Amino acid sequence: MSEQLHLTHVKPEDIEATSFEIISRELGPLDLDPQTELVVKRVIHTTADFDYAKTLTFTAHAVERGVEALRNGATVITDTSMVAAGINKRVLGSFGGQVCTFIADADVAAEAKRRGLTRSAVSMERAAQLPGTLVFAIGNAPTALVSLARMLNDGSLPRPALIIGVPVGFVNVVESKELIMATDVESIVARGRKGGSNVAAAIVNALLYLASGNRRE
Amino acid sequence: MSEQLHLTHVKPEDIEATSFEIISRELGPLDLDPQTELVVKRVIHTTADFDYAKTLTFTAHAVERGVEALRNGATVITDTSMVAAGINKRVLGSFGGQVCTFIADADVAAEAKRRGLTRSAVSMERAAQLPGTLVFAIGNAPTALVSLARMLNDGSLPRPALIIGVPVGFVNVVESKELIMATDVESIVARGRKGGSNVAAAIVNALLYLASGNRRE
Repeated sequence: MSEQLHLTHVKPEDIEATSFEIISRELGPLDLDPQTELVVKRVIHTTADFDYAKTLTFTAHAVERGVEALRNGATVITDTSMVAAGINKRVLGSFGGQVCTFIADADVAAEAKRRGLTRSAVSMERAAQLPGTLVFAIGNAPTALVSLARMLNDGSLPRPALIIGVPVGFVNVVESKELIMATDVESIVARGRKGGSNVAAAIVNALLYLASGNRRE
Repeated sequence: MSEQLHLTHVKPEDIEATSFEIISRELGPLDLDPQTELVVKRVIHTTADFDYAKTLTFTAHAVERGVEALRNGATVITDTSMVAAGINKRVLGSFGGQVCTFIADADVAAEAKRRGLTRSAVSMERAAQLPGTLVFAIGNAPTALVSLARMLNDGSLPRPALIIGVPVGFVNVVESKELIMATDVESIVARGRKGGSNVAAAIVNALLYLASGNRRE
């Protein structure tokens, strides 16, 4: 097949390294610490969208606390099964951590309907009951972030190690991210409308690879 | 919490409709048939990235054939578990269809290593053995598209109803999409570097909602 001759010959194991080289070259130098820079580059690797170099916003110790929590076996709460599917469970499990998602639970749907809330909002209330250190990875539902902000403010959510707030969309998405940034919890937020399940999973994975001492497993 | 006063009050069930109104307003009129237009808008709904209005490329009967295949219970092959997680299995299952993903199979990993291929490429060879009508939804691996193009050209892949080719990335991604567009199979491709698991799932879901006669289930 002659078209294949135009494909760059890169071994499967080298594709990621080559991709990161291209990203680094096109991005140029960033005014970030090396660990935060790797998180930004992994999101660009996942999306091919360089906007994230401008929109990703980190509190002072977000990456450090996230890495530390994951290394100590924190539970990762996601708002969708898609975020959960994208997280490297092998590395997470090697630290004793696991992923929890309540969105598909039948009783969550019933309660959400009864109270006129989204299932995502009710899911976060369920997550607030979990023991241990929590890392939230929200890639879809702004109402999940609104619920987290409300519970942080009224004291019903014990302080999580980190909130990754990267929902995507057009209604209350921008505002929900600003709400999280107004709390005093460590957060990684993609300001603006963009984000997604893939972005949330990429950030968790970047932290996991940092926790395991490799850029990638 | 005073910040919440700034949130727009939209009922959970109205968020999607409001989002589509905003997308339609910002996009302006598109020179597309109404069904194709809904696919484009659902991808923008999933990504908040209006670039897709320019990069999504449809063969003449791609949407029609995809909808028809799904309505008749086609099997959807994905390259990652994340694409699989994002597909509305309730609607797919209502037509008798299911999702198949081979990427996590132990024997696929072993064969890929032995042959110096990616697991994605070997996964596509497994999929080619499946009976019935197939729809491919590739959101991550350019090598999956290269494998599909090779098998179409050498006749080892029976003609699928549709290939959704939206991998994301920096190495061979652009080229792999052009390879698929050079075949005579119906395809929906996001030209360029951008795409992703979320985009692949969104396109399948858009076709499922069209198949079920609703914009959304």
